[in-house]
Amino acid sequence: MRAVSPNLMSTWTAWFPILHWGRSYDRRAALADVTASAVVTLLLIPQALAYAVLAGLPPVTGLWASMLPMVIYALMCSSTVLGPGPTALRSMMSLAAAGSVAAVGSADFAAASALLALLVGVTLLVMGALRLGFVAHVLSRPVLAGFMTAAALLIAMGQVRHLLGVPLQADDALAFVRSLWHHAHATHGPTLAVGVGALGLLLVLRRAAKPVLVRLGVPAAVAGLVAKAAPLWVMLLAIALSHGMGWAQHGVAVVGEVPRGLPPLTVQPLLQLPWSVVQALLWPALLMALLTFVEQISIAQDMAARRREPLDANAEMRAMGAANVAAGLSAAFNVGASFGRTAVVADAGGRTPAVGLITAVLLALTALYLTPLLHALPMAVLAAIILTSLGALTDWGSFVRHGRYARADLAAQVLTFATTLLVDLLSGLAAGVLASLLLHVARSSRPHIAVVGNVPGTEHYRNVLRHPVVTQPHILGLRVDESLFFANAPYLEQRIIELVARQPQVRHVVLQCSAINAIDTSALESLRALNDRLGAAGVRLHLSEVKGPVMDQLQRSDLLQRLSGQVFLTHHQAVQALAGDTPSQD
Amino acid sequence: MRAVSPNLMSTWTAWFPILHWGRSYDRRAALADVTASAVVTLLLIPQALAYAVLAGLPPVTGLWASMLPMVIYALMCSSTVLGPGPTALRSMMSLAAAGSVAAVGSADFAAASALLALLVGVTLLVMGALRLGFVAHVLSRPVLAGFMTAAALLIAMGQVRHLLGVPLQADDALAFVRSLWHHAHATHGPTLAVGVGALGLLLVLRRAAKPVLVRLGVPAAVAGLVAKAAPLWVMLLAIALSHGMGWAQHGVAVVGEVPRGLPPLTVQPLLQLPWSVVQALLWPALLMALLTFVEQISIAQDMAARRREPLDANAEMRAMGAANVAAGLSAAFNVGASFGRTAVVADAGGRTPAVGLITAVLLALTALYLTPLLHALPMAVLAAIILTSLGALTDWGSFVRHGRYARADLAAQVLTFATTLLVDLLSGLAAGVLASLLLHVARSSRPHIAVVGNVPGTEHYRNVLRHPVVTQPHILGLRVDESLFFANAPYLEQRIIELVARQPQVRHVVLQCSAINAIDTSALESLRALNDRLGAAGVRLHLSEVKGPVMDQLQRSDLLQRLSGQVFLTHHQAVQALAGDTPSQD
Repeated sequence: MRAVSPNLMSTWTAWFPILHWGRSYDRRAALADVTASAVVTLLLIPQALAYAVLAGLPPVTGLWASMLPMVIYALMCSSTVLGPGPTALRSMMSLAAAGSVAAVGSADFAAASALLALLVGVTLLVMGALRLGFVAHVLSRPVLAGFMTAAALLIAMGQVRHLLGVPLQADDALAFVRSLWHHAHATHGPTLAVGVGALGLLLVLRRAAKPVLVRLGVPAAVAGLVAKAAPLWVMLLAIALSHGMGWAQHGVAVVGEVPRGLPPLTVQPLLQLPWSVVQALLWPALLMALLTFVEQISIAQDMAARRREPLDANAEMRAMGAANVAAGLSAAFNVGASFGRTAVVADAGGRTPAVGLITAVLLALTALYLTPLLHALPMAVLAAIILTSLGALTDWGSFVRHGRYARADLAAQVLTFATTLLVDLLSGLAAGVLASLLLHVARSSRPHIAVVGNVPGTEHYRNVLRHPVVTQPHILGLRVDESLFFANAPYLEQRIIELVARQPQVRHVVLQCSAINAIDTSALESLRALNDRLGAAGVRLHLSEVKGPVMDQLQRSDLLQRLSGQVFLTHHQAVQALAGDTPSQD
Repeated sequence: MRAVSPNLMSTWTAWFPILHWGRSYDRRAALADVTASAVVTLLLIPQALAYAVLAGLPPVTGLWASMLPMVIYALMCSSTVLGPGPTALRSMMSLAAAGSVAAVGSADFAAASALLALLVGVTLLVMGALRLGFVAHVLSRPVLAGFMTAAALLIAMGQVRHLLGVPLQADDALAFVRSLWHHAHATHGPTLAVGVGALGLLLVLRRAAKPVLVRLGVPAAVAGLVAKAAPLWVMLLAIALSHGMGWAQHGVAVVGEVPRGLPPLTVQPLLQLPWSVVQALLWPALLMALLTFVEQISIAQDMAARRREPLDANAEMRAMGAANVAAGLSAAFNVGASFGRTAVVADAGGRTPAVGLITAVLLALTALYLTPLLHALPMAVLAAIILTSLGALTDWGSFVRHGRYARADLAAQVLTFATTLLVDLLSGLAAGVLASLLLHVARSSRPHIAVVGNVPGTEHYRNVLRHPVVTQPHILGLRVDESLFFANAPYLEQRIIELVARQPQVRHVVLQCSAINAIDTSALESLRALNDRLGAAGVRLHLSEVKGPVMDQLQRSDLLQRLSGQVFLTHHQAVQALAGDTPSQD
């Protein structure tokens, strides 16, 4: 038997932190984890069912989405309290993306939903492997706030249909308002009563359950957890009443037959999808992967700070990627971290990722034996559960805060919000990302360019606007204070042409490159165009003080051969060499 | 009668430069313009027909796309030689975008194509009005080169079907190769003969026509123009042969009945499209507007430099926007500038935008009286004309050039190229833009942060790595050398947490803000999180040397109230005030 090399062992431990914390796992930790698992399972069951329906899939797939992904995540994660599972936002995005390639309810739709989860997972794994975590920063705060608030509104609009018992469109805000106008008169009374009743009960339980229980002598911690599981109590009550009073016979839509069992582990349906479906899901997968990572890491950082625990962002990204791959292979849909569930695990005293393993077992038992109970559950109650969960997504205050603080950020937020509401979720998110990036490019598209002159008696050159310096009429010395790239090079080109046009005596332009650390391909083309345009006007372009690495780079292009002027070691040498070449007096 | 105010008059002249140059228009200019118009019309007719077919529309719409748009453009443009018209690239993109919302050949498809042109036009007009021209720079050179080369390949693949006379898919490169493999054996001999013959003749004429004519005594300028009109001669020859030999009876696909007449000026079909079509065309319209402007402005700049003429980029953007709106209202499709046609106008001596007006009249006559001639024109000949025009789009050398010069740029180019070929045109362009922007964000995502210490005997603070300075173990002084924004603030946050973790004695972090010109909303949240995280570890965060505008901005947020430390006027004051607060020795 060979010994495992310590190096290999540490790679294994990096990928599977359970190999590290699992060794010191003891009975006390296990007891705490089992309690936390039981509580989070009670919270998760109604959420899983509701979010599966929101994603356009059978309720049981919500349970599947929490089983294998939770196991995989628990093996790979570094955070002690996070866990993957269905979320309202991701379900809505999954519905939109999969719905654009297949009819909701078809076998292809289910396969496309699973494929989307798989693609999100692969994207996260690839980004993790390439250490592209920084890419997630392009989802800036204003864009996220605008997007999530609009998404919550869209999700709410989508649930109104179940509350009123009438068919309503909710693809975008305009379609919703139009169809509400046409159909509101046909509202089904009993359905509305059930829905509003469930909504009211949920809101009351959430506010009043804890203080009432505490007054009755229940310990505060237990009372808090009972209150958090309010959706489960409302669901059980609704099932009992619906069953007893025969709501379905009164025209109240119910969940109906729910297939039970464990998820099929297969890639067969995914492989039968045509390539065009993969193409159509690539962009949604990329955006959803970014969103999933940004939300996860912000919850994880928050928790790590509160619990004073270290956090490995790369491990988190890998674990969430693998969890989504697992969801895709379990015929489920995109999963992510939820702030609500994470807080419940922390409150209930969960101590290690083993919470995920135990919860997965409890959910498997539910999927195997308890789904027949759901037959009589009214859809309106699931809608009420979704509606009460949306508060965590909305952030109206941010519009005021960001508006007061920075107009440009507010503009990006409003653009994201409006595009999400009026076009669709993915366009909204994409528009927001693009707006953030463009704002950044706009800020850096005008490099600082100084006209420089000689400080008398020295070899130094300084800005003519700030220092008493000497210039020569036929030489234009310029210093650029930034690296040149696609967004700022065109401005430089245009600015120099303007400066030369204003000074007809100029015969030489000397670009002092001491602050230029890099010149990208587009900027190189701009310099070449500048050289040619100046050349056509009889003006020669020179460079001075080019840094070593930049010079190496330029030597791999043809700019130096085409340059009408020379490259000087110092700006002073350039000015001295060109001083004699004054314009002829004809 | 009131006199027009000079201010209003100059606004009118800015929008319609024809009011300026039209006043001095004389017979010499008119003669030159008529000649140039005749030549460019001969070149444009076959192109217009071919590119209309490429866009999935009836051939006559290609003529429509050059009429009203040319007139509108001529009234508003500043360039003397550019003109809008159908181009291979735009037609292909229009086909892809309109084909995603309606079946090619349907009335809705034609309406969607026209709507797309209208949206592109409106986008350009809005961008022009908001002076957003800089946005076009996000299409960096490597991305453009990768995109255009791949687009040329896709266009070529789409024409192989007409050359072989078999149905082939060409949505992406994989689909093309697969369907070529299945169908190549069924190639229709006569069609192939006609197509290859036309292709060969075009290539020979382009190379040999000019030198042969010159040797026969024809003036070089005339010979050059005759050679440039090669597509027209090949087309006329093919029509004559096809008619005489009855090619259509031998199974060669021909253009067939072409409706003749002038474009209907109506918005009726556009208004009948559902809102979802508008939504689906918004992104394609945005990308096509950017592409149209970038190509136009690069051709215009090149021509302006050669002809030593001024150029107004905003006027160009407005004119091209209005031309596309006109195309949309003429039941046509997206139009843009073409380098080939522009060069022909310049060579033929065109002097003013009146060339566009005269060409439009010639095209109208063609659309009214000459379309019946096209009946017998083989599709394979149109395919050959398109194929020979693609050389202007491909730039294989750029892969080598950019690869040698900058790896990151090559990566963006290859990504754009591969996504365009394997997914679709719009995804390819979008992926390229995103890659360019992300490269830029990546470059600026790590701000330069220096730990600073006191230069003994002074009130100055400098980088500890470069200067012999004095620091105190319980104070960490840091200077950030860049403005803080969404992409670099998370790095700052993480870096400071790491620095503090390495120095357990630190009780105060002082951020010297002398180089920070702005802090965006996301960076503000990072500072708030940093303040809280440091606070949890018993470390206080102070700011020093905050610039006036930044301080004004911060005062509109709650950061200053929440700050665990103070704001100091100078870094030296901060260090002096905190010097006494050493850690207790317990």
